[in-house]
Amino acid sequence: MIVHKYGGSSVAAPEKIRALADILKKKAQDDDGIVVIVSAMGKTTDSLIALAKEVSDGSPDPRELDMLLVTGEQVSAALLAMALKSAGVEAISRNANQLQVASTDFYGDARIRDINAARLLSDLEKHSVVVVTGFQGVADGGDMTTLGRGSSDTLAVAIAAKLGVDCEIYSDVAGVYAFDPNKIDGVRKLDYIQYDEMLELAALGAKVLHSRAVEVAKRYNVKLYCGSTFSDERGTYVVAQLPEWVEQPAVTGLAVDRNQTKFALKKLPHAEDILSILFEALAGTANVDMIAMAGDDVTFTAREAEKDRIASLVEERLKPYTGWEMEISDGVAKVSAVGVGMNTATGVAGRFFSALRAENVGVLGVSTSEINISALLRADQADRAVMGLANEFGLIERKDRVSES
Amino acid sequence: MIVHKYGGSSVAAPEKIRALADILKKKAQDDDGIVVIVSAMGKTTDSLIALAKEVSDGSPDPRELDMLLVTGEQVSAALLAMALKSAGVEAISRNANQLQVASTDFYGDARIRDINAARLLSDLEKHSVVVVTGFQGVADGGDMTTLGRGSSDTLAVAIAAKLGVDCEIYSDVAGVYAFDPNKIDGVRKLDYIQYDEMLELAALGAKVLHSRAVEVAKRYNVKLYCGSTFSDERGTYVVAQLPEWVEQPAVTGLAVDRNQTKFALKKLPHAEDILSILFEALAGTANVDMIAMAGDDVTFTAREAEKDRIASLVEERLKPYTGWEMEISDGVAKVSAVGVGMNTATGVAGRFFSALRAENVGVLGVSTSEINISALLRADQADRAVMGLANEFGLIERKDRVSES
Repeated sequence: MIVHKYGGSSVAAPEKIRALADILKKKAQDDDGIVVIVSAMGKTTDSLIALAKEVSDGSPDPRELDMLLVTGEQVSAALLAMALKSAGVEAISRNANQLQVASTDFYGDARIRDINAARLLSDLEKHSVVVVTGFQGVADGGDMTTLGRGSSDTLAVAIAAKLGVDCEIYSDVAGVYAFDPNKIDGVRKLDYIQYDEMLELAALGAKVLHSRAVEVAKRYNVKLYCGSTFSDERGTYVVAQLPEWVEQPAVTGLAVDRNQTKFALKKLPHAEDILSILFEALAGTANVDMIAMAGDDVTFTAREAEKDRIASLVEERLKPYTGWEMEISDGVAKVSAVGVGMNTATGVAGRFFSALRAENVGVLGVSTSEINISALLRADQADRAVMGLANEFGLIERKDRVSES
Repeated sequence: MIVHKYGGSSVAAPEKIRALADILKKKAQDDDGIVVIVSAMGKTTDSLIALAKEVSDGSPDPRELDMLLVTGEQVSAALLAMALKSAGVEAISRNANQLQVASTDFYGDARIRDINAARLLSDLEKHSVVVVTGFQGVADGGDMTTLGRGSSDTLAVAIAAKLGVDCEIYSDVAGVYAFDPNKIDGVRKLDYIQYDEMLELAALGAKVLHSRAVEVAKRYNVKLYCGSTFSDERGTYVVAQLPEWVEQPAVTGLAVDRNQTKFALKKLPHAEDILSILFEALAGTANVDMIAMAGDDVTFTAREAEKDRIASLVEERLKPYTGWEMEISDGVAKVSAVGVGMNTATGVAGRFFSALRAENVGVLGVSTSEINISALLRADQADRAVMGLANEFGLIERKDRVSES
């Protein structure tokens, strides 16, 4: 028994749905039963949101918006189930109501509370494939909810955890790469990545897997696999521990966030609670990222979109104090290297900074965690920095030389 | 408290949904609460069916097809509810699950078994408009069902019956006409029509109201009103009895079915059970319409589309017998006049046939019921026949002459 999840691009058109049904037909012969979680077809969710905004002056009621959006997954689930039946596979579609996917009532970003596994198991006795609507849940009282963008991954992993089986996430990307394969030619696809590395990369903006899905997989030790729907190319296993025969690399992957703004606060007053005054004010309303303190100066970064809001918040909070200055720099990027291996490998930080220096990249700030080194730098130097780091840490596939003899 | 139903053309686009929300906002101020049943937007159901056929070699699984089709009404219900909320009206959408619209599990054409009126009443305590998805029900076990094309009318009437309130059916047609207003210029719109007349006209192909809706209205004595969504033009009341001050016309409306085929069976054997042998065979598989017998000859009609199937059924069943002949005539039309008044008015049949003769229309067959006279004639004479009957029975509005003084 196994859980699969297919993204919107895998069911974007009738011919893709038929092709997916053929693939599942073959897989259903090898397995004791497949639970398939599907996203809405292609850009359906975006179109529905646009429609909702049109009828409601741009701000649709959240409860009704969820009632609307859940139809996208019900359409793709029903179509896949009928394509499977038409291909001769015993299949049935189930929505969140029928499967009793209980959620909180935080519309638009609800959390899964429970899933009726008994119901699913009884379905699997009678059907070789059970197609489950992704993205949706049901709150107490019967209101439909959505579980947040990208949450179908999480639902898939939660169902796998509940059933105690493996989970395979399929999309148009063939696995997890050390860096965005559209940005670096020949960047290495990973055979294995550990939960913590995947979490760190997802938090840094890698879009392969929803981070809540990885968190749930880690907590319940669900073996995750990310692969390509329509190709046999080998994908990536997301695991707690690498298999023994796999050598742990120092750096597993890279990430870059190009839309950062750097705030430098100088000559801050010597009030003891100045940092808490500052960051408590920001905590509720803005995502503050790298924070560094040295002497009387504090530097932090945030998304460029939040720049103005943060600047006025800081000014308001520090109004009682005088003498301080704020310097705001746009066009800053954060480049990060992530790897469980840097815990044990020596000299990773040294290699990181040497690689940047070799590319003539100036470092504007640094933060580190157990498995992450991030450097702040000028956005126009980000590509060079990433390329230097990818080379340094062996993240680019070496083409085998053609033997001459 | 009142029940409204709006057809697909009333919610076909975002701007129509907003306009409808504005109309409902005004109406909500006069009423104790409105239950609004909506159809899917415009041609949504047709598009979904096309999609279903594409993924399933033309024959989608009925259970999954219903799972797919119900999304159409959920989209329009959610959009209307959010448009209402955005216009400042306390509104909420409810699907068949939430409202517990229990149905049989005959997918594609399920019958309503019950509706949770208590739930609806409790919603109406907190909201001035409750928007209910048309077309859908829930079978035992939780499968979604659809109630048949046009069944949102029926659901609206059933809800009105359950609540003991009136029901108003809105569409892009301003009421019930004595005949299709696109076919006869100036044909009379009816202020009132009786349930039985409406049933007869609906059975004869008038498309204003779903006949099951009229049956339910009749059984539970629900006062029905058919009107135009976006105009203030006066519509039509469908009632058990005309108000006392309204004179009962002899003929209320006309109908024509242009796609009939006439089967004439001659020299049938004198077996006693020959008619039951014949029509029992046809009953399960074809819709046989007018049946007339005279001497050893039997004439009946059926839809042209069923011609070949019926012909081979007849040949198969009468194979044991010899000497009989079958004559099949295409291009036959049935023209009907319907009116409760013909029960009491004298000479209606005489006027009917005189009007046809005056138009030089030849009558190929006749059948009558309490409130219906139907004549079979050549299809190319149908227009003339209808016009003659409309004039004879006063079904065309007389333009008032402009006074000269």
